[in-house]
Amino acid sequence: MELKIALLKGDGIGPEIVDSAVAVLEKTAEKFGHRFIFTPYLIGGCAIDETSLPLPQETVDGCLASDSVILGAVGGPKWDGLAGDIRPEKALLGIRSAMGLFTNLRPAKLYPALRSASPLKDEIVGDGFDLLIVRELTGGIYFGERGYREGRYGTEAFDTEAYSVTEIERIGKVAFEAAMKRSKRICSIDKANVLESSRLWRKTMHELAEKYPDVEYRDMFVDNAAMQLVRDPKQFDVIVTSNMFGDILSDEASQITGSIGMLASASLGASKRGLYEPIHGSAPDIAGKNMANPIATILSGAMMLRYSFGLTAEAGTIEKAVDKVLDQGLRTADLMGSSLDTPLSCTAMTEAILKAI
Amino acid sequence: MELKIALLKGDGIGPEIVDSAVAVLEKTAEKFGHRFIFTPYLIGGCAIDETSLPLPQETVDGCLASDSVILGAVGGPKWDGLAGDIRPEKALLGIRSAMGLFTNLRPAKLYPALRSASPLKDEIVGDGFDLLIVRELTGGIYFGERGYREGRYGTEAFDTEAYSVTEIERIGKVAFEAAMKRSKRICSIDKANVLESSRLWRKTMHELAEKYPDVEYRDMFVDNAAMQLVRDPKQFDVIVTSNMFGDILSDEASQITGSIGMLASASLGASKRGLYEPIHGSAPDIAGKNMANPIATILSGAMMLRYSFGLTAEAGTIEKAVDKVLDQGLRTADLMGSSLDTPLSCTAMTEAILKAI
Ligand SMILES: CC(C)[C@H](C(=O)O)[C@@H](O)C(=O)O
Ligand SMILES: CC(C)[C@H](C(=O)O)[C@@H](O)C(=O)O
Repeated sequence: MELKIALLKGDGIGPEIVDSAVAVLEKTAEKFGHRFIFTPYLIGGCAIDETSLPLPQETVDGCLASDSVILGAVGGPKWDGLAGDIRPEKALLGIRSAMGLFTNLRPAKLYPALRSASPLKDEIVGDGFDLLIVRELTGGIYFGERGYREGRYGTEAFDTEAYSVTEIERIGKVAFEAAMKRSKRICSIDKANVLESSRLWRKTMHELAEKYPDVEYRDMFVDNAAMQLVRDPKQFDVIVTSNMFGDILSDEASQITGSIGMLASASLGASKRGLYEPIHGSAPDIAGKNMANPIATILSGAMMLRYSFGLTAEAGTIEKAVDKVLDQGLRTADLMGSSLDTPLSCTAMTEAILKAI
Repeated sequence: MELKIALLKGDGIGPEIVDSAVAVLEKTAEKFGHRFIFTPYLIGGCAIDETSLPLPQETVDGCLASDSVILGAVGGPKWDGLAGDIRPEKALLGIRSAMGLFTNLRPAKLYPALRSASPLKDEIVGDGFDLLIVRELTGGIYFGERGYREGRYGTEAFDTEAYSVTEIERIGKVAFEAAMKRSKRICSIDKANVLESSRLWRKTMHELAEKYPDVEYRDMFVDNAAMQLVRDPKQFDVIVTSNMFGDILSDEASQITGSIGMLASASLGASKRGLYEPIHGSAPDIAGKNMANPIATILSGAMMLRYSFGLTAEAGTIEKAVDKVLDQGLRTADLMGSSLDTPLSCTAMTEAILKAI
C-alpha cells in the first residue's frame, strides 16, 4: 500500500517521539512492502511562533488530504500566557472538529512487565487490567455555546453541555461494536440524576443496548465511576461516556496503570482517516534531552495501521516488538521507578524496538 | 446551650446511623451540660411513600427553623424507576438550595489505624494524607437552565454550567479561610483551557489569592487532578472546585482512603446553620440488619458541633472517642478487609464510642 501520513509533531518532546514513531513505521513498511509518505505540518506553540495561529489552515488542509495523521504533543510554558483563542490547546479542539473526529479511543492497559508501576495495591491489580474508554470527542460542553450573560448574581460566564440522539447513537455504536470484539461488557457513564443531557444519553444507550443482546450493558454515575476505577478497575471492559466525563475518567484510568508513557490513543470519525497520539503531554522539562519515552507514540502508529489502514499483521509486529523490549527489561527513565540502573534514551529505546521488528 | 437539631434520617441505613449519631450527641450534651432538641422530618424515598414528594414543604420549614440539620442517606432501588422530579435525589438538591448551602466541605483523611484499607500502595500513602475538598454546592451545571432545544443534529438535550464572580468569590473565601487554618496550601481545580466559566473561576481565584499572600495557591486542570489524586494525594491540602468537578473529585478522594464508612461532610451557607451527613449512601442491601458503620454520621455530628455551634471541645471529645475505638481494633464489617474476626454491629460500635466519651 502507498499511504500519505500527516505528521503534527508539535511542541516539547513532540518532535523526538514522532521521529521515533516514523522510524518504526518506516521499518515496518519496508518489511511488509508498503510505502508511507510523511508530510510534517505545524500545530500548537510552534505554529503560533511561525504563523501566529495554533492551527494554520495549511495544517487542516494537509490533514484532510492525508490518509491519516500522527500527532506528538502541543503546548508549553512559553505559550501559557496567551489568551483563549491562540492557545496551543485550541489547536487540538480545532483539528478534532475539522476532521470530524467524534470518537476518542483510549485503551488503559496494565502491561504485565510494568505491573509494579501501578499506584494501586497488588491485590487490586491482580493479573492486570485492560480497559477501553470510548470518549465522545466533538460534542458536549467542549463545543456548546459559551460566553457571558446576565444571571441571578449579575454577570455570569456560561458553557452549554448539549447532546442529540444522533451524536449519542453514533458514539454508542462505536462502543458497542468495540465491546463485541472484546469481552462484550460495556458501562455507560453519565450523571442522569442531575443532567438532562445525561438522561437523553442514558435513554439512547438503553435503546442501543437492546440491539446488542450479546453485550452485557450497565450504566453508572460519573462520581461512582471515579471511585470504582480506583477500587476495582477490573470490573470494567469498555466504558463509553461524554466528552467532559471522558476527559476526566480516561486520565484517571491512565494513571492507575502507572505508565502513561506507554498509552496510545486514536481519534476517529466517519471515514477511515484518524488522528493518533500518545496520551501524555509535551513534557517541556525534558524536551530536547533525548530522555522521552517514545513507546506511546510508536503504539499510536500501530493503532493507526490497525484502525485506519486495516494492516493488522503490521500493527501486531510493532506491538510485539514493544512487548519484547519490555520483557528484556529495557526501560526509559519514566518507567524506571526507584531503580538505579541507567535508563535508555529515546533514541536507544527506538533502536531496540527497530531491532525487535 | 439549648439547640434545635432537625433529623433527616432518610432511607436504607439512614435511620440506624442517625440514631447512633443522636445517641452520641446526647451523651456529649449531658457531659458538657447542653440540651439538644431533635425533631425528625421526612426526606427522600420515605417522604415519597408518605407524601408523594421527596422533599415536603414541612421538611424545608423544619430545617429552616432549626439550628442545624443531620442527614442520613436517601434513595434505594424501590424508588429508582421514578421520573426526574420525584426521585429521592431531587430532595438533596432541593434542600441544599432551600437552605442556601453553597459550600460543601468534604475531608478525605486516611486514618492511621485504617491505612491498610487504602487501595493505594504504601509508598504512595506514606504516613497518610488529610485533604479537604471545598465544593461549590448551589451553582454550576447542577442548577443552570436545562431542557430540550433544536441544535445542529436536530433536537438536543442541554444543561448550562454558569458561574458569577459573586458565587466564585464566596466559595473561594471559604476555601482560603480553611487553608489559613490548615497548612496554607490551596489548589483550585477547573477546565480553563476549554470552559468560559472556568476562565472566570480561575481569574476570580487569582484575584482572591492576592488577598491571602500567606496561602500558597496554584490551579490545576480537572483531568490532571483526577490523575494526581491517585498518583500523589499528599501533594494536596485544600482543594476548591465547582459543583460538578467537586462531585467527581471528592468521591475519588474518598475512595483512595479506602474507608468511606468513616467520612463525614458539612454543607454550609451564609449563616451558622448547616447540613451534616456521611458521604456514603443509603446501602439498601444492609439496611435494617444492624451492620452499618455509624462512624461517618457520628463524625458528621462532631462537625456540626464545631462548624455550626463553635463547640470545639465537644467535637474533639467525639473525634477522640472514635480514634480510641479504632486504636482498640474495633471494626464494623465494612472496615474488616479480609480479616476473619467477627465485626461489630452498628449498635455495638455506637456503644463502644459512647463508652469512650
Ligand atoms: C488540552 C485539552 C483541551 C484536551 C481535552 O480536554 O480534550 C486534553 O486534556 C485531552 O484530553 O486531549
Ligand atoms: C445524589 C446526587 C444528586 C449528589 C450530587 O451529585 O451532588 C451526590 O452524588 C452527592 O455528591 O451528594
